[in-house]
Amino acid sequence: MKGFVWPVRVYYEDTDSGGVVYHANYLRYMERARTEWLRSLGFEQDALQRAGVVFAVRSVMLDYLRPGHFNQLLAVSVSVARRGRASLTFAQEVYLHESEELLCTAHVKIACLETTTFRPRRIPDEILAEFARDR
Amino acid sequence: MKGFVWPVRVYYEDTDSGGVVYHANYLRYMERARTEWLRSLGFEQDALQRAGVVFAVRSVMLDYLRPGHFNQLLAVSVSVARRGRASLTFAQEVYLHESEELLCTAHVKIACLETTTFRPRRIPDEILAEFARDR
Amino acid sequence: MKGFVWPVRVYYEDTDSGGVVYHANYLRYMERARTEWLRSLGFEQDALQRAGVVFAVRSVMLDYLRPGHFNQLLAVSVSVARRGRASLTFAQEVYLHESEELLCTAHVKIACLETTTFRPRRIPDEILAEFARDR
Amino acid sequence: MKGFVWPVRVYYEDTDSGGVVYHANYLRYMERARTEWLRSLGFEQDALQRAGVVFAVRSVMLDYLRPGHFNQLLAVSVSVARRGRASLTFAQEVYLHESEELLCTAHVKIACLETTTFRPRRIPDEILAEFARDR
Repeated sequence: MKGFVWPVRVYYEDTDSGGVVYHANYLRYMERARTEWLRSLGFEQDALQRAGVVFAVRSVMLDYLRPGHFNQLLAVSVSVARRGRASLTFAQEVYLHESEELLCTAHVKIACLETTTFRPRRIPDEILAEFARDR
Repeated sequence: MKGFVWPVRVYYEDTDSGGVVYHANYLRYMERARTEWLRSLGFEQDALQRAGVVFAVRSVMLDYLRPGHFNQLLAVSVSVARRGRASLTFAQEVYLHESEELLCTAHVKIACLETTTFRPRRIPDEILAEFARDR
Repeated sequence: MKGFVWPVRVYYEDTDSGGVVYHANYLRYMERARTEWLRSLGFEQDALQRAGVVFAVRSVMLDYLRPGHFNQLLAVSVSVARRGRASLTFAQEVYLHESEELLCTAHVKIACLETTTFRPRRIPDEILAEFARDR
Repeated sequence: MKGFVWPVRVYYEDTDSGGVVYHANYLRYMERARTEWLRSLGFEQDALQRAGVVFAVRSVMLDYLRPGHFNQLLAVSVSVARRGRASLTFAQEVYLHESEELLCTAHVKIACLETTTFRPRRIPDEILAEFARDR
């Protein structure tokens, strides 16, 4: 249902003095999940970089529904909402691992770039092929 | 033109191994600017908290146009795009201080909450009055 | 040999434009490992806080031996080097998970405080008893 | 007395749910101050990098005396405690800007490295000359 899911624990470093997870940190959680999703498909980003492929965030839409708290175990989902030739848009959710209560939802658009020039480039076919299989 | 503007220097802590400012950090920059804008209007957030008023980010729309780099001096603008009774939407931009080249634009919706219950509450009148003056 | 060990993956958020793990982040890794070590002994820090017990870092000695890099899997060890009535000193290491190459070593002194007053207090007996068993 | 001093404001991003500045963030504050101190001497680190010179933290000794809190204005001092051919040791303090109450003291040893090989190298003479003048 939720596609790929990655667990994330909330440590002190993630919270702020409001007693909740600092809002920018959900973007970090979501990138961890995307990295692990890529890894689960067989793609290591350091190897991709050496092969000339790097991914960069182009836009983000985030809705914060409920605050996360210190020591909670969260789950971060990853699913591909739209697949272009040089970009991917992910739908991602962050929720409480146990109750599945939703904390944050997002759409994150990622562009595929050349490592050195930072110019847009086609997503390599072997990656697209894996994405197609990932449903 | 740009309303309130706050300078931000890019340190090592802000960058990633892609050689650019890590994407989540623009949200931190934008919050610094909103905090300083509130201060410039005479409102200290720790005093507001003690008075029962806390602000929380409800949603974010971010577009990344160009990467920021180590040691650059950035500028972060703050202007109120929409003013509700219990929420504010800010239009914010991050650009290079010198060339004014735009790096990132955002809309950030902030809700006004009661400090203890985290329930939505009206923005205090004295703050709304200041916002009205801030054009 | 190494006592408790916790795996940590290096994500983009952890690196800087020097291409390596940002030096302050090793402190975050070490706290994650101490938190998980406490959990492995049956102590959840949010429950401890509600029971009036909070831990705070008092001093740190850190040696950086080799840089960590993006996408590496690290391991962080935790062992109690010295046990006082109101403080604990941990010896911690961060090394590459696979090769066991050492990146960083540290001594971290933690004080036990009362949650509300932030005054030093004795470490609760049930925790000390568990520590004694943890060799 | 305190040598170079750099002001740092505590934002939400810097605090944790214990209500205080997260301990690892003092290392970020100290690096900001060292960067600004270098800049005040006429050295921009991005230019130094292009000239083959990069600085890396080798060791840290930190004592945490009192917690910092949200919205406080801090001051971070920088003074050179020991000057070697390929390394510098800084004595740094973080204190409340207004009351000068001390929060954190540290010794930070920095090595001078070649940008590409990451091998230790002599600190360039023009930098050493400036350091000598900085008393």
